[in-house]
Amino acid sequence: MRLADLQTPALIVDAERLEANLLAMSTALPGERMRPHVKAHKSTALAQRQAAHGHQSFTCATIREMEGLAAAGLGDDLLLANEVLDARRLGALDARVTVAVDSPETIEAAAVGGVREVLIDVNVGLPRCGCAPEEAGGLAERARSRGLSVRGVMGYEGHVVGNPDRSEREREVAASMEKLSAAHRDVGGDVVSAGGTGTYDINHVASEIQAGSYALMDTAYAALGLPFVPALSVLATVLSVNARYAVADCGLKALGMDHGAPTIDAAKVWFCSDEHVTFAPEPQLRVGDRIRVWPAHVDPTVAYHEYFHVASGDEVLERLPIDLRGW
Amino acid sequence: MRLADLQTPALIVDAERLEANLLAMSTALPGERMRPHVKAHKSTALAQRQAAHGHQSFTCATIREMEGLAAAGLGDDLLLANEVLDARRLGALDARVTVAVDSPETIEAAAVGGVREVLIDVNVGLPRCGCAPEEAGGLAERARSRGLSVRGVMGYEGHVVGNPDRSEREREVAASMEKLSAAHRDVGGDVVSAGGTGTYDINHVASEIQAGSYALMDTAYAALGLPFVPALSVLATVLSVNARYAVADCGLKALGMDHGAPTIDAAKVWFCSDEHVTFAPEPQLRVGDRIRVWPAHVDPTVAYHEYFHVASGDEVLERLPIDLRGW
Repeated sequence: MRLADLQTPALIVDAERLEANLLAMSTALPGERMRPHVKAHKSTALAQRQAAHGHQSFTCATIREMEGLAAAGLGDDLLLANEVLDARRLGALDARVTVAVDSPETIEAAAVGGVREVLIDVNVGLPRCGCAPEEAGGLAERARSRGLSVRGVMGYEGHVVGNPDRSEREREVAASMEKLSAAHRDVGGDVVSAGGTGTYDINHVASEIQAGSYALMDTAYAALGLPFVPALSVLATVLSVNARYAVADCGLKALGMDHGAPTIDAAKVWFCSDEHVTFAPEPQLRVGDRIRVWPAHVDPTVAYHEYFHVASGDEVLERLPIDLRGW
Repeated sequence: MRLADLQTPALIVDAERLEANLLAMSTALPGERMRPHVKAHKSTALAQRQAAHGHQSFTCATIREMEGLAAAGLGDDLLLANEVLDARRLGALDARVTVAVDSPETIEAAAVGGVREVLIDVNVGLPRCGCAPEEAGGLAERARSRGLSVRGVMGYEGHVVGNPDRSEREREVAASMEKLSAAHRDVGGDVVSAGGTGTYDINHVASEIQAGSYALMDTAYAALGLPFVPALSVLATVLSVNARYAVADCGLKALGMDHGAPTIDAAKVWFCSDEHVTFAPEPQLRVGDRIRVWPAHVDPTVAYHEYFHVASGDEVLERLPIDLRGW
């Protein structure tokens, strides 16, 4: 099958670029130094490729992702890097399950739900989940008193990963990891889980990095000058053309828009509506032409689609289900 | 089942508010005066309710939506208000199928694909699909020469529907519909299809209105002071709380973000990330509390979810599949 035979919009993964990204990361952070975050691709098939590159432990953002990886035989060491108040589905998994906790309530949910291992989630600067560093030791003690094994700490420097200035990123990561190290001293355990695609080679405190976007990339991360290449695009068909602009069939339901509009090569994007992108192409296009639309944010883009189409040049090699969507 | 028993995030439809919205619209625009756009809810079950309110003809944005309605027995009169370059799946449907065309290429695709009826799609001011008004007559002639029946014209005043000033909306609709009327004189046929939730009672030129958002509404449309009430929210669980903010499990993969961040009652929303919303609540919340998150844009929000949970107060009456997602 050729790209021209696909119904559009269709999510395309460039086979060689994906492979290059996976190789670059597994070379920099081999084996357990990297715990790939599956939230970016939501596909057990892509997780299998990361496993083939030596990473046998995974990070998840949802219970559905945990269940899917366990069912696919990838349950050696699964971390739900997120808080839950009902852990019963996690407790029922045939897998090694660790869940993040940051409060008495989430510790209680883990214990009641049948989860056996936890990480203390520490706020290192991103205003999201995570306890204050000075509370981590007390929470670890409480977790152990509830019969839970505390493997260590987790702290995501998500407020830092997108800073385009590398030396600033380095300073900010150091400040964040100072907080995580302090918490780790109080908590104990082997695991210090942190980091993302933007800090994978800057964060030297973490025992494991939770990067996800590196495999497919997006235009936001591409701006950082990392050694990972854009491998994900949406193939679209030009539906309408006039002297000022063209319209293609890739809109708000095929693109995560929180990081802004997508990019189209040799064109200026005007705006997206539900099923369309309006753009000024240079040179002129014709109705029926196919174009590539480059998403600004990989995660919420992927979550709209049913399949990746892995392609080498014009040839579609395979279709991989995006089977970890939903909750 | 109660709301408290649902896994979150969960899309909730208030049963009474939905019914009130459907009744308000079917009273204002009974029967064929209204051609509900299913792109907003993507659910054959909700389309069935619109049919029960007297609307037997539907508007779609994708081929998948057309196929789903036909398979559900709602194929009396289906309009694909969008251009396609491959109409074979449409030609194969057991339904009355009309498709929008705006170029020789889309006319050819309709003819080759086995579609029998078309509307000439006219640009009335929104920079998207649609021919120039003065080209409509020639395209109609070309369509007829290819054996297609031309039912009339279509022209969506999407650049107008969100204007909060009603008298400005009226002026802009009049200007747009002047263009559509001119095209209609050249094209002929019975159908003048246009309008949306923001212009349903302002557009007196259209023979039928294509509104979709009115059934569920969102915070953007709620700002217009229309007689439709917000019926759609995302139920979320508070995962983490501290003195400054709280975090709940409703993020970028549960919300269309192109119209901006969602709204939370008695709270200030700070930002969303993939699976979280961070917000400053007033009064203080506790971990495990349930909250309602009100989306800014209904269409791309619904497209992330598998089900609507229709609820009356705290009771979940039924779960309806969002079965028209994808393409």
